[in-house]
Amino acid sequence: MVNVAILGFGTVGSGVAEVIHKNGSHISEKVANQVAVKYILDIRDFPDSIFADKIIHDFSIIENDPEVDVVVETIGGATIALDYTRRALKAGKSVVTSNKELVATHGYELLQLAKEHNVSYLFEASVGGGIPIIRPISQCLAANELTEIAGILNGTTNYILTRMIRAGLPFEDALKEAQANGYAERDPSADIEGADACRKICILASLAFGRHIYPDQVPTEGITHITLSDVAFARSGDMKIKLLGRAIRREDDKVCAYVAPHLVPDESPLANVEDVFNAISVKGDAIGDVMFYGRGAGKLPTASAVVADVMDAAKHLKTKKYISWAEGGPDAVYSIDEVKNRWYVRTNAGVAAPEGAQVLSNPDDKACSAFITAEVLSEKELRAKLDGTEILAAYRVLD
Amino acid sequence: MVNVAILGFGTVGSGVAEVIHKNGSHISEKVANQVAVKYILDIRDFPDSIFADKIIHDFSIIENDPEVDVVVETIGGATIALDYTRRALKAGKSVVTSNKELVATHGYELLQLAKEHNVSYLFEASVGGGIPIIRPISQCLAANELTEIAGILNGTTNYILTRMIRAGLPFEDALKEAQANGYAERDPSADIEGADACRKICILASLAFGRHIYPDQVPTEGITHITLSDVAFARSGDMKIKLLGRAIRREDDKVCAYVAPHLVPDESPLANVEDVFNAISVKGDAIGDVMFYGRGAGKLPTASAVVADVMDAAKHLKTKKYISWAEGGPDAVYSIDEVKNRWYVRTNAGVAAPEGAQVLSNPDDKACSAFITAEVLSEKELRAKLDGTEILAAYRVLD
Repeated sequence: MVNVAILGFGTVGSGVAEVIHKNGSHISEKVANQVAVKYILDIRDFPDSIFADKIIHDFSIIENDPEVDVVVETIGGATIALDYTRRALKAGKSVVTSNKELVATHGYELLQLAKEHNVSYLFEASVGGGIPIIRPISQCLAANELTEIAGILNGTTNYILTRMIRAGLPFEDALKEAQANGYAERDPSADIEGADACRKICILASLAFGRHIYPDQVPTEGITHITLSDVAFARSGDMKIKLLGRAIRREDDKVCAYVAPHLVPDESPLANVEDVFNAISVKGDAIGDVMFYGRGAGKLPTASAVVADVMDAAKHLKTKKYISWAEGGPDAVYSIDEVKNRWYVRTNAGVAAPEGAQVLSNPDDKACSAFITAEVLSEKELRAKLDGTEILAAYRVLD
Repeated sequence: MVNVAILGFGTVGSGVAEVIHKNGSHISEKVANQVAVKYILDIRDFPDSIFADKIIHDFSIIENDPEVDVVVETIGGATIALDYTRRALKAGKSVVTSNKELVATHGYELLQLAKEHNVSYLFEASVGGGIPIIRPISQCLAANELTEIAGILNGTTNYILTRMIRAGLPFEDALKEAQANGYAERDPSADIEGADACRKICILASLAFGRHIYPDQVPTEGITHITLSDVAFARSGDMKIKLLGRAIRREDDKVCAYVAPHLVPDESPLANVEDVFNAISVKGDAIGDVMFYGRGAGKLPTASAVVADVMDAAKHLKTKKYISWAEGGPDAVYSIDEVKNRWYVRTNAGVAAPEGAQVLSNPDDKACSAFITAEVLSEKELRAKLDGTEILAAYRVLD
C-alpha cells in the first residue's frame, strides 16, 4: 500500500483525488501496489465531498505518520508550500507538485534536500499542465546536448492573442472574453505581464542546461501593449504574434532566458498553436527540433500529470529519481543584449524602412508603417541603426 | 563501467556509436557511470572507421562476455535480429532496439523474456525516430485511461503528400523527388503501401491499450492511389490528405487499429505537420489531446533515442523497467467495419451529392464531383447509401 497525502483541496488538489479515485484499479495495477489517498490537508472542511473523511487541518499529522509515502503539494505560492515541502522531504516522504513558483524559486534547494533524504521531488505538472515535458527532457532527450527551448507556456495569453488575430478583438475585449470563459483570473497580471511564463522557462532552462536560472535573471515582457495594428502588420508578412518563453545555451554553457512577444512565421509549428493550448519546442544536437503540444492548464490535465508523478514516486520508493541541477548564480547567465535576431518594427507613417527590410502593410492603420529588418541584430544595435526614428513597437522575429 | 555491444553497423548503428563517442562525458555524468562501446557486430570490416578495433563478426563473443550489459540491436528485420535478441536477453543482457518490425511482430514474447531474465527490452527509437513517445505513453500519461491514438507515422509518405499539396506534383513525381532527396528507398513499397506505419501503430496500440496488436490484424491502405484531384477537392474544403495510423479503444477494451489516408481539417494540429516530420496525437480521459512532433527518421534523431534507452538501461541494471503488455489474439480487436466517420467521396461529374453533404470543388477536374457526407457512417453503410453510384475514391475524415 502506498499512502498519499494531498496538501490543498483546490482545483488541482481535488482533481488529483478524483483521478486517483476514478482510475484507482488501473493505477494500482501499473504501480503493482495499491495507491490510496490517506489525508487531504486544507483549512476548510468539505462536508459534502466524498473525500470528507480524509480532510485534516494539521500538517504535523502527515509529517509524523510513517505510513505516508508521497505528499502532493498543490497549495501554490512559496511560503507555506515551501515550509511543508521542506518538512515532508526531511521526514523522508517523496513530494510531487504542480507549483511552478516554488520550483522556479527554490528548485535547487528542494532537489538537494530530496537527494539528501533519498526521496523524489517531482514536478511534471508545473510546466505545460498535462503535456509530458519534464520527463522527456530529463530522460528521453538525455543523449542530446540541448541548445535551445522556445515555448508558448501560458494558455491565457495565447487565447487572448488568438482572439485578437482571428476575431479582430482589441486586447482589452479579448481579455474580458478570456475572463468570462474562465481562462483568465480576475487579476490577470501574472498571465498578461509574463510572470507565469517566466517561472516556467526558469524550470525548463534549469532542467535542460543544468544550473538553476532564477526568475529575477529572466527579462520578462508581457502582451499588454500589443495592438491590433501589430497583429495585422504581422499577418501581412505571414506571421503571428505569440508570447514565447525562450532559453538559449551559448557555447560557454551560459544561458539567456527571457519572455517576450515574438513574430512567428506561419511555417513554424509554434505559429499554429491556438487558443489555450501550449507547445514547447526543444532543440538538441542529435534530434533536431521536437515539439510537445497540448492543454497547458485545466483541472484534469494538470491532475493527471501530478498522478503520473505520484505513480513514478510510488514505483521508486526505494530508489531515488535522477532529476537534479546545480546551484545558479550570476555566472550561469549571459545578457539578453547579446541575443540577436531579425526585428519587427512599427514606426510613424512615412518613415522609410532600412535597406533590404521587408515592408509590411496594414490598410487599416494610416498612422503607422512597419517592417522586418533584413539583418540579425541585438536590441542595442537595432536602436543605434534606427537612431532618430521614433519606434512605436519592436518585437523579435523567431527564425 | 557499462559496456555496450552494437549489432549492425549501418545508418542507425553507426549513429549510436557516434553519439556515445561525441557526448560521452555528458552521458556518463547523467548515468553516474562510464558508458562505453565494447563491440560492434557486423559482417563487414570498417578499416577506416575510428571504431575499427571494436568490429567483430561472431555474436557468441557478445553473448558469452559477462562484461556486456547492454546490447543495441540495429540489424532490422525479424530473422537474425530475433535470434540474437532472444539469446542476448537469455544471457541476462538488456536489449535496446530501433527495429519496429521485430517489436510489432514479437514484442510480447521478447518483453516476457526480458521480464523472466530481469532485464530491460526498450524500443523508444522504433516509433517516431527521435520523438519521445514510448516513454511518455508508458510513464507520463500513466494516470490516464487512453482512448485513441492517431499519428503521421511515416515521413516518406508525408513528404510525398506535402509535395502533392504544396507544389502540385503528381504522386509519381513526388515519389521520384523523395527518392532523389534520400527520403525514400529505391524500393519504396514498405512506405507508400503503409507497412511501415502499420508496424508503428501496432507498437503504439499494444503499449497504450495493454494487449499485443499484430500487423496482420491491422487493415492497411497506402497512398499510391491518391490523385492531385483528391488533393484539390480536399483543399477546397480546408482539409489536407494525410496518411494516418489510428488505434481506437472501445468501451469493452477491444481495439481497432488501421492505416489509411484521411482528410484532416486545417484546424487539427496534425494538418500542419509537413515534409518528413511525424506527429502522434494521444487522447486520454484526463489530459484530453496531447501531441508529440519531430523528425520521425534520420540517423542522428533515431540514434539519440537509442542512446537515451541505453542510458535508461544502464541506470536500471539492477531494477527492471516496467514496459509490458499482454498476449494478443482475435478477441483483442474489433472490426474496422464498426469504425464510423464522415467520408470524402469522389464520383463521376454530375452525380448528385446526398442531402446535407458538403460539396467540394476542383475547377481543374471537369470529370469528377466530390463531397463530404453529413452523417457519420461505417464503410458498409456508406456503400449501401450510395448504392448504384460509382465511387472513384473514398477516404475517412478525421473529426
